[in-house]
Amino acid sequence: MTKSHGEGASLLEYPASQGRAGDLFQLLRDGKARTRAELAGSTGLARSTVASRIEALMLSGLVGPAGEATSSGGRPPSRFAFNPSSRVVLAVDVGASHVIVAVTDLGGKILAEQRLARQVSDGPEAVLDQVVAQGRKLLATAGRKAGELAGVGIGLPGPVEHDSGKPVKPPIMPGWDGFDVVGYVQQSLRVPVLVDNDVNIMALGERTAHWPEHGNFFFVKVATGIGSGIISSGELQRGANGTAGDLGHVQLARGADVQCACGNYGCLEALASGPAIARALREQGLDAAKGSDVLRLASDGNLQAIQALRQAGRDIGEVLATVVNLLNPSVIVVGGSIGVSGEHLVAGIREVVYRRSQPLATSHLRIAVSIAGDQAAILGASRMVTQYVLSPAVIEATLAGTAAAG
Amino acid sequence: MTKSHGEGASLLEYPASQGRAGDLFQLLRDGKARTRAELAGSTGLARSTVASRIEALMLSGLVGPAGEATSSGGRPPSRFAFNPSSRVVLAVDVGASHVIVAVTDLGGKILAEQRLARQVSDGPEAVLDQVVAQGRKLLATAGRKAGELAGVGIGLPGPVEHDSGKPVKPPIMPGWDGFDVVGYVQQSLRVPVLVDNDVNIMALGERTAHWPEHGNFFFVKVATGIGSGIISSGELQRGANGTAGDLGHVQLARGADVQCACGNYGCLEALASGPAIARALREQGLDAAKGSDVLRLASDGNLQAIQALRQAGRDIGEVLATVVNLLNPSVIVVGGSIGVSGEHLVAGIREVVYRRSQPLATSHLRIAVSIAGDQAAILGASRMVTQYVLSPAVIEATLAGTAAAG
Repeated sequence: MTKSHGEGASLLEYPASQGRAGDLFQLLRDGKARTRAELAGSTGLARSTVASRIEALMLSGLVGPAGEATSSGGRPPSRFAFNPSSRVVLAVDVGASHVIVAVTDLGGKILAEQRLARQVSDGPEAVLDQVVAQGRKLLATAGRKAGELAGVGIGLPGPVEHDSGKPVKPPIMPGWDGFDVVGYVQQSLRVPVLVDNDVNIMALGERTAHWPEHGNFFFVKVATGIGSGIISSGELQRGANGTAGDLGHVQLARGADVQCACGNYGCLEALASGPAIARALREQGLDAAKGSDVLRLASDGNLQAIQALRQAGRDIGEVLATVVNLLNPSVIVVGGSIGVSGEHLVAGIREVVYRRSQPLATSHLRIAVSIAGDQAAILGASRMVTQYVLSPAVIEATLAGTAAAG
Repeated sequence: MTKSHGEGASLLEYPASQGRAGDLFQLLRDGKARTRAELAGSTGLARSTVASRIEALMLSGLVGPAGEATSSGGRPPSRFAFNPSSRVVLAVDVGASHVIVAVTDLGGKILAEQRLARQVSDGPEAVLDQVVAQGRKLLATAGRKAGELAGVGIGLPGPVEHDSGKPVKPPIMPGWDGFDVVGYVQQSLRVPVLVDNDVNIMALGERTAHWPEHGNFFFVKVATGIGSGIISSGELQRGANGTAGDLGHVQLARGADVQCACGNYGCLEALASGPAIARALREQGLDAAKGSDVLRLASDGNLQAIQALRQAGRDIGEVLATVVNLLNPSVIVVGGSIGVSGEHLVAGIREVVYRRSQPLATSHLRIAVSIAGDQAAILGASRMVTQYVLSPAVIEATLAGTAAAG
């Protein structure tokens, strides 16, 4: 190593600003309008590079004109901004006994939406055929063309191998195991198709829409089953086999004599899910066939139902206390049909989490009921698609394609 | 949207290859030698751009010549490769009663290393002064100049706010709370200084050195305390306040009558750490003052000590079963002085994890004893620095600095 380059001066300092062409669009994704000069200043790119990138982005429609800046003399400079309405996304939430199909723009704004009664057990072809047909209708309703579709995002009520989009041994989805959801949908809609399990996309939707500044975010769904979606360092975490977040079969001491459908004893799901709470109330002589009956009883002021919800919250809190110590999220959101039902369940969760977790991890922790509610999954399915199609790599390819075509 | 750009053809396809200038160095980081033509082909960059990038990288020393490729006629083309020995890193592992200081190259190869007896309770200035002095000696031993130092990585035995490098209420580190470790070290060594807690860097070191292909990796340290380091989607996860991985204070039903130093009852650390196992053996009439005594007894074949280690493994396994369901790692590595001691503890962990976790999450799960052992923290401290100084943003700034200087 000779003196001329041995000083390593530039490695000794933190970088002031970085400049890469792909960063220009990522900068504009915040929606703020900027002039070419501002973009050159923020990215460190040459003016000529900024001009040609803006031209390519305008041609793709992803960026549009956004008025003029104040002039310091001479012709006022033009401003440019991300145009989220340039393309649309088909967002699909497949539940056990419903399907919600929606068309959103690239910013996650819902342009048209339809809820359908449909059993997931009807099998993938029947369900996906209906999704595609309904999607086409909704595109027309929203006044958009098939060619404006950027992608399809689908949430399914079971484990999904995200890279392939194939369900993996889903317990309540006969006929779906290993089914090529992506390939099947792409026979009709030739766009990127992304698939994930419903709790992951609920986490993504809730966080994107309501907690964007929280990079360490935990979403727990309490309904017929119990599951969770984990966002760490701003990214959805799926684990090695896509089963991350499987909270329902963590075992609790209290349930040592309660058998779960999985075969083990004391699983959280066997103690605190909607059906489990209903069963506990039936054993007390109440008329509660399923989770919704528990909610009805509680809202009528039945003390046993209220106490059962609170106890379910405590049981969930036992597991969430471990989650807090382990993942140190700044927000835990409780969703799902039982989770969003009121304060009793969440009060039980808070009681245990704040007692059992370490003070450093809970000092700024918020525990909240889902704000997105029913729409969490749709918003997440849309976001899953835009994360992909607006990523630096895909945008680079898009612009290269536009340039090649032009 | 007009037809000329309304087809969205390029958004309809997955990208074939991406090309950005910064990617050229990231590509070379794998250590393989490549010709300019191969680099142009892999990155999609123009030949002229590749040539100028290679020139800048050669000038910085980060890339060097690596022989010639076979010619297809005419002068054989030159090959280039990442030169990990071009700079060095000072890697520091501060424990409760020891400090290890090492000099590594940019590939994590240890060039010189020294273990010192030093109490962390002596306070930050005494400890860090010794680290700097020892670091200078080791640089000389390794035949390297201070100007070749790319950065300093430090692991501390307590919670650290990674962004600022400041310890946060560390229980066994009097005088360190909120201390500006980065600023203090930079008074002597004017390079980037990165700080994290010891378990995080042990996870990083173990994974980098021995499990690089595992992006969902979990490291549990069992010693005087119990803690863990989480790698998800290939990235170390620190949580909202830097306390992620705090496994030691998860509560277990078995220990309802055992009080922990934290004030709660039944914490994992109060049941399964070195001092906890020693205490349990003392209660059985054995002579075991601390964790190392437990290991000695077990290696002498004492059945009570062996059973106590196995039970500690089962207790740790209870918590790891939840970790497996929640994070779905493909590898769990057990380290720390008690963790690496033999098969008894790990046998207890395996017994419980495979029984209590969901089959999908354990079907490909490996549970192994640390391979890096004593060197995990040093390797991780080095890796923490190279992750930063070789990142695209810092490399861009480096090359810009080199170009400006030249």
